[in-house]
Amino acid sequence: MNKPDQPEVIQPLSSAGCFKWGIIGCGTIAAKFAEAITLLPDACLQAAASRDLARAEAFARQWGAKHAYGSYEDLLADPANRPDAVYIATIHPQHLAAARPVLQAGIPLLVEKPLTLNAAEARELIQLARQQNCFMMEAMWSRFLPAARQVKRWIDEGRIGQVRLLQADYGYNGGPDRSRRHLNRTLGGGTLLDIGIYNLEFTGDILGYPPQALQSRAWLDPESGADTHYQATLIYPQATAQLAGSIMTYYPDRACILGDKGRIELPHFHEAQEAWLYTEDGASCHFCQPYQNGFQFEIAEVMRCVRAGLTESPVMTLTESLAWQTVMDQLRQDWNLVYPTEKAAGQPAEPRQA
Amino acid sequence: MNKPDQPEVIQPLSSAGCFKWGIIGCGTIAAKFAEAITLLPDACLQAAASRDLARAEAFARQWGAKHAYGSYEDLLADPANRPDAVYIATIHPQHLAAARPVLQAGIPLLVEKPLTLNAAEARELIQLARQQNCFMMEAMWSRFLPAARQVKRWIDEGRIGQVRLLQADYGYNGGPDRSRRHLNRTLGGGTLLDIGIYNLEFTGDILGYPPQALQSRAWLDPESGADTHYQATLIYPQATAQLAGSIMTYYPDRACILGDKGRIELPHFHEAQEAWLYTEDGASCHFCQPYQNGFQFEIAEVMRCVRAGLTESPVMTLTESLAWQTVMDQLRQDWNLVYPTEKAAGQPAEPRQA
Repeated sequence: MNKPDQPEVIQPLSSAGCFKWGIIGCGTIAAKFAEAITLLPDACLQAAASRDLARAEAFARQWGAKHAYGSYEDLLADPANRPDAVYIATIHPQHLAAARPVLQAGIPLLVEKPLTLNAAEARELIQLARQQNCFMMEAMWSRFLPAARQVKRWIDEGRIGQVRLLQADYGYNGGPDRSRRHLNRTLGGGTLLDIGIYNLEFTGDILGYPPQALQSRAWLDPESGADTHYQATLIYPQATAQLAGSIMTYYPDRACILGDKGRIELPHFHEAQEAWLYTEDGASCHFCQPYQNGFQFEIAEVMRCVRAGLTESPVMTLTESLAWQTVMDQLRQDWNLVYPTEKAAGQPAEPRQA
Repeated sequence: MNKPDQPEVIQPLSSAGCFKWGIIGCGTIAAKFAEAITLLPDACLQAAASRDLARAEAFARQWGAKHAYGSYEDLLADPANRPDAVYIATIHPQHLAAARPVLQAGIPLLVEKPLTLNAAEARELIQLARQQNCFMMEAMWSRFLPAARQVKRWIDEGRIGQVRLLQADYGYNGGPDRSRRHLNRTLGGGTLLDIGIYNLEFTGDILGYPPQALQSRAWLDPESGADTHYQATLIYPQATAQLAGSIMTYYPDRACILGDKGRIELPHFHEAQEAWLYTEDGASCHFCQPYQNGFQFEIAEVMRCVRAGLTESPVMTLTESLAWQTVMDQLRQDWNLVYPTEKAAGQPAEPRQA
């Protein structure tokens, strides 16, 4: 398993030389993150916090964290055991509230994707991070996969010429149970924010941001109002992105980038382990780098940036995260899709069938 | 190699009981058609016509046609050797002129796709066919492939539930030589009419026609004005089609149909030999029926229809052909793409970069 290049001079951090992580929220994705930490020789899990102390303690036992806290505040209020960075693993409607005090404490921050529920929240959080001169990154882990970086290199080297078309789809069958998160708007459920963001930020990696124009549609669940399927066309000066996703049906999870001189294909693009390059002269390249877990690459990037004294990752910038939050707001506006907390904040419309 | 079901009562046709084909135009596609005739036990090549008699004679020798003619009119003016049907294999700007006298002679007609250059021409030809009560069909051979019919059955049986998304792309690298047909607007060159029609009529088979709305863009070759790449989104009440094509770059030639209960995939959809059905319960079906050539299925359909006294194929109707010609006109209008003969007929704009 290769990792992104390390900077030549490693800044000493904690006394043990080991990068100490704190995790806020102890659900499924936190467990995947904690497992990824075990794959990195220079990282360790320092602390886990949950609003439920017993849950935090069980999580800490399972993943070898030194400390467990029954509130997010407690994790930040323990200066002797201050983590080198915190990962926010809550559902996205809670990101802003959970992230704010971490930045106020000046602790480097990785926030599970999407950064926040909407662009207004993202703008607030980014402003705070910049005021505090504190590192922050959206946890778009797919961006840091070796196959994704190889694809970006092929594009930058002009291997397929001018890109004309990018296709990316991703869908899973979350089942019809409306009490579950994926269909529950109060918990931030719906296709776009849950998995559509993979397609959008993959597009951003290849074509940049923002697009010039958007065309889209979605189907909203008649009972919960969550977007169960969406399709979007993103217009760029020289290229188009055709995107689609669903939380009710399996989609192939495939990306294809078509240029004037060839094409690149990524099966299971959001968790890509391989990529194919086909050029018009008949040559082809196959890149394959298997991994387990996959979160270790974004974790290594955070550690690299923090050790180098950066406040943003140059690969996944806050400007880009804000751009895609803005695009998601625009798409949801076209679908009349509002989250309950937004309605409380004075947003106009109730969701209706798009 | 299976063929579509034959009707139970076979109408006697020619004296030999063999369906006698005439071919107008003796180029590459005519040769593929003639080869397909040899695969059918109840069909034979009666005559071939070219404006160049030597070419017609060489073609007749190669494919065992009894007669060769140095003009299209001569083929029709030989009542003793009247074919049971004629296939128009010229380039599409010549379809109307070549097809008109065949219908006037009351001879069943198969016209290479697209039916004509535009909807006005298609309307004229269809009107004439109906006046003459004469069979006519657009030669959308992909429609009749066993894999395509199996996919249609899966859809009709509700195997993937309500279709939400159809993706189809097809592109090849025709090279930069602007004297060749694919880039020559005078010869009807350009992506949409050459191969985009496969994507459109595949969509028609699955989602019907016409779509409610269109969104599209194209790149026009700055020298020839031909459309070298196109992308289109077709909006239906319950589904969207994302289509793309190119005559400058290889595209995967892949179709995927995504429904609420599963999905269907067709690799190399326009010449499909196989199809996969994946349902949400975890089951999958693989249909595979290899063939050589592929034109024999449409040829068998024409023979079935003519023998049954039909004037249209219920699988590929003239109403549908006209609908897609109209859609192609709309797309070209959005791209300011006009063919030289249309300009002569009083169309407004010269092509410009879309």
